Amino acid sequence: MTIEWVGVDADDTLWHNESYFTDSSALFAELAIPYLAHADDPERAAHDLLIATERRNIPMFGYGIKGATLSMIEAALEVSGLTIAPADIYRLVERAKTMMGHPVEFLDGAVEALDALASFRLILITKGDVMDQRRKVELSEISPRFDAVEILHEKDADTYLAVLGRHGISPESFVMIGNSLRSDVLPVLDLGAAAIHVPYTSTWALETAVEPTGHPRFRLAHHISHTPELVRTLDTTPKGADPDDHRTD
Amino acid sequence: MTIEWVGVDADDTLWHNESYFTDSSALFAELAIPYLAHADDPERAAHDLLIATERRNIPMFGYGIKGATLSMIEAALEVSGLTIAPADIYRLVERAKTMMGHPVEFLDGAVEALDALASFRLILITKGDVMDQRRKVELSEISPRFDAVEILHEKDADTYLAVLGRHGISPESFVMIGNSLRSDVLPVLDLGAAAIHVPYTSTWALETAVEPTGHPRFRLAHHISHTPELVRTLDTTPKGADPDDHRTD
Repeated sequence: MTIEWVGVDADDTLWHNESYFTDSSALFAELAIPYLAHADDPERAAHDLLIATERRNIPMFGYGIKGATLSMIEAALEVSGLTIAPADIYRLVERAKTMMGHPVEFLDGAVEALDALASFRLILITKGDVMDQRRKVELSEISPRFDAVEILHEKDADTYLAVLGRHGISPESFVMIGNSLRSDVLPVLDLGAAAIHVPYTSTWALETAVEPTGHPRFRLAHHISHTPELVRTLDTTPKGADPDDHRTD
Repeated sequence: MTIEWVGVDADDTLWHNESYFTDSSALFAELAIPYLAHADDPERAAHDLLIATERRNIPMFGYGIKGATLSMIEAALEVSGLTIAPADIYRLVERAKTMMGHPVEFLDGAVEALDALASFRLILITKGDVMDQRRKVELSEISPRFDAVEILHEKDADTYLAVLGRHGISPESFVMIGNSLRSDVLPVLDLGAAAIHVPYTSTWALETAVEPTGHPRFRLAHHISHTPELVRTLDTTPKGADPDDHRTD
C-alpha cells in the first residue's frame, strides 16, 4: 500500500464522547431501577433494556443525543407501565440539553498525533447527530488540520465508499483510525483499505465487534500517540519504487 | 443570467411534509389545552407555546422530527407543571415514530415539473433530520433525476455557498425553487443567484418571511407546474450571444 490519505474518527478517538453518554445511561438506570427490583441484577437489567430500545430505534432515529433521549424516555415510560413521574421524564429532557452543550475534551495525545500525521492528507470521518457533530467540530477548532470533514449517518462499506469516491481516494491509499471496530475498522478493511483500532476506555454495546487480529491491513494501537508510527508500517512502498510491485496484498 | 443549475427543495415543494407536522402539533394542542383554560384562545396559546419552545431549542436540536418531539415533550411537561399523564408523553413518542414512517406523497405536478426541467442540471437541496430526509429521498426514488442531493442542517447564505462551491456552481447560473422564503429564497438572492417561491398551503411559523416582490432575480409561482417556464424567464442569455453582455443585474 502507498498511504496518501488518513481518515480519523472523532468521538472517543480525538475527543471524549462515550463518557457523556455513560452519565446519561446512569441517569436512565437511576430512574428505571425502581421498576426492575424483581431482576437478579437491576442495574444490568436497566442497561440491557436501554440497549434493546436503542437497537430497535436506531434504524428510525439514527445515532446521537436526540434519538438516544427519545429511546430513554420511551424505555422509562414502558418499564414503569406509564407510571413514572413526569419530573423524571423532564430530567431526561434536561439531560439531552446538557449533552448538546458538553465541552470538547481532547484525548491525551490526540492533537500531537494529528501533528505527526500532517504529511498525509487528513479527513475527519464521524457519525451521529449532525448538529452535535458540527458543534464539536467548530468548538474544537480542528477543521484547519483536515483536508475534508465528513459527518455520516452510518459508517458502513457503502458510506465509506461514497466518501472515498467524493474525494477521489483509492482504498489502497487509505487508512482509517478510530475506536470502533464495527464503524471504523471492519467496513474499511472490507473495502481493501487499512485500519488502525485505538480502543477507548469504554465501548458502547452497539459498537462492539471481534478484533481482526492478524489481518495484514489491520493494526492495533494502545494509544493514539502510536498511530503515526503504525500508519508508516502500512505504507510499504519504498521511496522512488514502482508502487505496483510492492503491494502488501 | 445563464441558468445552468436548478436547485429544488423537497419538503413541501416536491412532497408533503408540513401537513404531517400539523397533525403532530394538533396532538400537542390536544394535550396542552387542558392546562391553558385560562387563556383567551387556548388553541392559539398552545400553538404559540410550541413555536416558542421550538424556536428556543432549534439552535441545539436542529430541524426535524426528533427535535420537534423533544420540544413537544418539554413544553407539555412545563405547561402542566410536571403533572401531565405519562401516557400522554408516550403518545408524543409514538407520534414521532409514526412521523418517521410516513409515506412520501408527491405534490400534484411535482414530478412533471422535474421532467420539464431535465435539460438543466438539477440538485436537490433539503434540510432537516438526516435520517428522515434520506429515508424520503430513497422512498421517493427521485435521486436518478438529480445530479446531486444535499441534506443541510440549515439553509442560509453560508450553507448555500458551500453547496455551490462543492459542485463548482456560480451563483449567476443558479436558481433555487422552494416553498420557504426564509430558507429557499432570501439567502439565495443574497448570493446573487435567482429564486422561485412556490408557496405551500401552510407555512411553519418559523419559516415565514416577507416576499421580495419586484426583485429582478425573484419569481413567484402559484403552482410547481409553472416553475419550468419561470426558470426560462430568468435565463436571459440569447443563444449564441456573449453572456457578459446580457446580465439582468
